[in-house]
Amino acid sequence: MIETPYLLFLGDAPDMLAAKVAIGIRDWRPENAVGQFRMEGCGADLGLTDMTLEQARAAGAKTLVIGVANRGGVISAAWKKVLVQALEEGFDLASGLHNLLRNEPDLKAVAEATGRSLHDVRVPSVQYPIANGVKRSGKRLLAVGTDCSVGKMYTALCIDREMQDRGLKSTFRATGQTGILITGDGVPLDAVVADFMAGSIEWLSPDNDADHWDIIEGQGSLYHVSYSGVTLALVHGGQPDALVVCHEPTRDHMRGLPGYKLPSLEQVRDTALALARVGNPACQVIGYAINTQHMSDADARAYLADVESRLGLPAVDPFRYGAGALVDAMAAI
Amino acid sequence: MIETPYLLFLGDAPDMLAAKVAIGIRDWRPENAVGQFRMEGCGADLGLTDMTLEQARAAGAKTLVIGVANRGGVISAAWKKVLVQALEEGFDLASGLHNLLRNEPDLKAVAEATGRSLHDVRVPSVQYPIANGVKRSGKRLLAVGTDCSVGKMYTALCIDREMQDRGLKSTFRATGQTGILITGDGVPLDAVVADFMAGSIEWLSPDNDADHWDIIEGQGSLYHVSYSGVTLALVHGGQPDALVVCHEPTRDHMRGLPGYKLPSLEQVRDTALALARVGNPACQVIGYAINTQHMSDADARAYLADVESRLGLPAVDPFRYGAGALVDAMAAI
Repeated sequence: MIETPYLLFLGDAPDMLAAKVAIGIRDWRPENAVGQFRMEGCGADLGLTDMTLEQARAAGAKTLVIGVANRGGVISAAWKKVLVQALEEGFDLASGLHNLLRNEPDLKAVAEATGRSLHDVRVPSVQYPIANGVKRSGKRLLAVGTDCSVGKMYTALCIDREMQDRGLKSTFRATGQTGILITGDGVPLDAVVADFMAGSIEWLSPDNDADHWDIIEGQGSLYHVSYSGVTLALVHGGQPDALVVCHEPTRDHMRGLPGYKLPSLEQVRDTALALARVGNPACQVIGYAINTQHMSDADARAYLADVESRLGLPAVDPFRYGAGALVDAMAAI
Repeated sequence: MIETPYLLFLGDAPDMLAAKVAIGIRDWRPENAVGQFRMEGCGADLGLTDMTLEQARAAGAKTLVIGVANRGGVISAAWKKVLVQALEEGFDLASGLHNLLRNEPDLKAVAEATGRSLHDVRVPSVQYPIANGVKRSGKRLLAVGTDCSVGKMYTALCIDREMQDRGLKSTFRATGQTGILITGDGVPLDAVVADFMAGSIEWLSPDNDADHWDIIEGQGSLYHVSYSGVTLALVHGGQPDALVVCHEPTRDHMRGLPGYKLPSLEQVRDTALALARVGNPACQVIGYAINTQHMSDADARAYLADVESRLGLPAVDPFRYGAGALVDAMAAI
């Protein structure tokens, strides 16, 4: 539905964490990212070629994807000039922000005048059911985390890729805007109306072959007070057979919540497992996915070895060192 | 905003549980309920005078309140005839259902033609913030439950009434359509977009006097897989200082989920408390509210005594025997 390839708009993103959407597209569909567009003061850099709108059009880009996720989803005034110009130069726009492109009168007017499309992937396009809790066939894995933005989506994508490489049956199930922009399908869970959250995840991961795995992208954290309800809807709607606990060891407080310390891996393991067993008594934690991007190779390997010996389950950085050990552990479920 | 008094519409509600909204209004604002309107096959009876629309108008009723909560919130075709007729006879309509009165073309057309109002109290009227987790002044109590519809709202209303009777500072904070219809204000939490759930509860219970208590109505249950995410948003957005665990002992499975057993009081106590302490490390469980409506007086008293001795905290049926012991326990917080 969204025309590729993309020019990835980084705007004035303060840091790389804010550019999660763009990074995800670069890493998982690099063929779709012809370049990046950065404004003055932008603190993010994907290592792609910096392009003007004209250069990107010449390189074949069809859609300007807003690749930054702002707190609250606001489309800032500073961005508007670029977005309007992009429409005028022939780009479609795609966004996963809370505030919709289609609700910005100036963007809507220019898009209509120029015949371009505004894609708001954040908006649910389905009337989801209330969750019924009925056991579904096939297997499901859910990534849960100590915090937001610790690598749950990457973990799920890595596991899915590893399973595909082994010829196993799996489907990555996107639950956020980046995943949806990457795969073209999914549930924009944090924009779903509260009563239908768990039902949307049941809908996303329906009955399947007994040996098929849905690899469900996690959201938020049971320990993040802003978004924990979204996470619990995934734990209960997803009916996971397997949980992977994700963590980023260098974080000193919960994302966006100064003063809130991260929980331990043990806390998340115990809390998530007890809650998951309400929906699926057979659920097991099968391993730990540690995001070691801010650690040296030696520190990362030492940390992983420590987690593995302390907790008695595979601990890997699936993006840096591969998800093989996690997929091995899934075979025992 | 909604004109009183009401005629309470019970439609074809299969049982009393489905008539929760109407029962709440009858019990907490009896002066606003002039009668009940029941259709053929209705299994609910509030003990109010059965009235035709004409009789209710003659008795002074100004608004027909849809007093039943259907699964998924559908406005059934069978109801439509009565609702259209009510508008034609001069009633406004008020509803807390998911499916909005204003989205029903026939009702909208008749309301416009007759100059009547359609009140959808289920729809958020505020742009809620993302929760920031910042500690707020004043104190908060949250009712949590083993299941949906076990008496959380009644427990909160009873505690609020008892505090008012003692001259203490308290405010009942409604988080569902019944509470909003009763008090005229609140957050329709299950209709809030997922990302803003916890923020809406922060908004609902802002900074207050150090000796003021917000008595926050609970929703769902951490153990109800359809709605648990909504509950966790209350636990984290509410920042409760005190939890009351609510239970209905005669329930043999979770509401709407055959095959799902209710958790024990101990499980809910431990799970809710551990999660609540993420947002407020000082949180305590202060007692148990048992809904004994389906038990004899002797059985009820024996059950309460057993819970109290087993768990070491006050156990009361606040609606049947008073909320005094819970309010006493709050004084120690």
